[in-house]
Amino acid sequence: MPDSLLIVGSVAYDNVETPGGRVENALGGSALFGAAAASLFAPVHLVGIVGTDFDRAGIAFLEERGVDLEGLETAEGNTFRWTGVYEEDMNNRRTLATELNVFANFAPRIPDRYRRDRIVFLGNIAPRLQLHVLDQMAGPEWVALDTMDMWIRDAADDLACVLKRVHMVVINDSEARALTGKTNLAVAARSILDMGPRAVIVKKGEHGVLLAVGDEFAVLPALPLETVVDPTGAGDSFAGGMLGYIAATGDVTVSGLRRALAYGTAAASLAVEDYSFNRLRGARREALDERYRWLRSISFLPDPHDQEHQNA
Amino acid sequence: MPDSLLIVGSVAYDNVETPGGRVENALGGSALFGAAAASLFAPVHLVGIVGTDFDRAGIAFLEERGVDLEGLETAEGNTFRWTGVYEEDMNNRRTLATELNVFANFAPRIPDRYRRDRIVFLGNIAPRLQLHVLDQMAGPEWVALDTMDMWIRDAADDLACVLKRVHMVVINDSEARALTGKTNLAVAARSILDMGPRAVIVKKGEHGVLLAVGDEFAVLPALPLETVVDPTGAGDSFAGGMLGYIAATGDVTVSGLRRALAYGTAAASLAVEDYSFNRLRGARREALDERYRWLRSISFLPDPHDQEHQNA
Repeated sequence: MPDSLLIVGSVAYDNVETPGGRVENALGGSALFGAAAASLFAPVHLVGIVGTDFDRAGIAFLEERGVDLEGLETAEGNTFRWTGVYEEDMNNRRTLATELNVFANFAPRIPDRYRRDRIVFLGNIAPRLQLHVLDQMAGPEWVALDTMDMWIRDAADDLACVLKRVHMVVINDSEARALTGKTNLAVAARSILDMGPRAVIVKKGEHGVLLAVGDEFAVLPALPLETVVDPTGAGDSFAGGMLGYIAATGDVTVSGLRRALAYGTAAASLAVEDYSFNRLRGARREALDERYRWLRSISFLPDPHDQEHQNA
Repeated sequence: MPDSLLIVGSVAYDNVETPGGRVENALGGSALFGAAAASLFAPVHLVGIVGTDFDRAGIAFLEERGVDLEGLETAEGNTFRWTGVYEEDMNNRRTLATELNVFANFAPRIPDRYRRDRIVFLGNIAPRLQLHVLDQMAGPEWVALDTMDMWIRDAADDLACVLKRVHMVVINDSEARALTGKTNLAVAARSILDMGPRAVIVKKGEHGVLLAVGDEFAVLPALPLETVVDPTGAGDSFAGGMLGYIAATGDVTVSGLRRALAYGTAAASLAVEDYSFNRLRGARREALDERYRWLRSISFLPDPHDQEHQNA
């Protein structure tokens, strides 16, 4: 029986414009993307906040997949809303508006039933709130944290505290550089290890991910997708898929983490093929296994000394 | 006995400034970097041009490694000189000055002894000159071509002709986008395949390389080096290492190309650890084998179904 995964993060309505089209009021946020991916592997306990405008029918599929929504609080006001636009190459996005709404007063309250969860994903919320979550937990075994440039800049002390209490950091390349002041990503990743966590994952968008654990590195490419519709939520789907796999297996050896990274990559590759989590919504575990095999085939490097044999 | 590899390209004196220091009159150019890497695997026939200011003592080590310099012409005037500066993150460089000097009148003349070479690297020179080289050859089996944005913009017709006559294109990501008008690199790579070559390699700098052959992709990361002194020549060392390996093995199966890519990556990783080819100069094949093993260990992805076994 897999462990439950606790996910704490944002629940949002997104307005997204891409070179190929646009969506309004699309479901999003780190907690929902994380849960949509993680629930393909393990039961999920979700903690977040929505406004009275939120239509729960849109996330009924999560409950059908075993996502527990007791921790999804409803507060007076509107749900968090993000409006953004992607440029032609999809690697750059501009935020046009961030309406925090009820998310401005989010103080995550962990239901009793969730407090013994062993695997935790702290989505990108204020480090102070991430600490508040950990204070309510009964000694989780593997906590992963995401953060962003705003907290690195404006909440450095809180962030330093929470980094000492987590096992894994999941962060994008520009944030890793901002957090450490190091431009070289391998050096930046090691510097983050020195801040407390046992593992650091640097997300490089279309270029894949870098994992640093102790003295070891692993690098996984992203899948060479020919169609990318909307990159929104790719990072959270990655984290959700990865942590869902860890919750399902309990395996945090380096080998286990490599596999978890690959399943996270697989989940993210599905997420970006449509708006919101339209693609993840209908996906099954088999689709992720197929992407895993694809990833394995593209990143396979033969033994250097096997040449004569291969030619035979 | 490995095939000889014919390399045609620039021979330069570089003035390079990096965040960590600077060098003046450093040996460089695509032909020299390519030969420095390739000669660790196979005999090299080099075709290029230098001025009367060129000191051949600086490349004596290439002759000791079996690089044949009969094709290195000396002309009245000065050697090609490039002056550039790298920004803090090493991913961006600015060209401060390009003095073509004798290179402006380069018309590659292939010595008779080289005309039956089966493996050819056409370094980044005018497509018209690349065609002129191929016209002098007796049916080479594997021709790889590098090019740049200037030729894509100003010599599109010549480039289209030469693309139909080569087997492999080695090109960086921004050039691949410029050549095809496609922002998605997987799509861009396939578009280039439609232009004639059997294989396309897109170089992504610190993010590694993408190979497209037929319907297959392979993606190899760069090594997570903690010290990068000077990226000048990384791409040419990559191409040289890769093609030297192909000349040594004759293996252009997809497996063979993967291995060749890895040896190219290994050569490039050595090149960037010092200015010019100071690091490649003293390197032995064993250093590349070691880097190959490192690359294999960081890019290894276990079988997804091997989990119980791994935990045992």
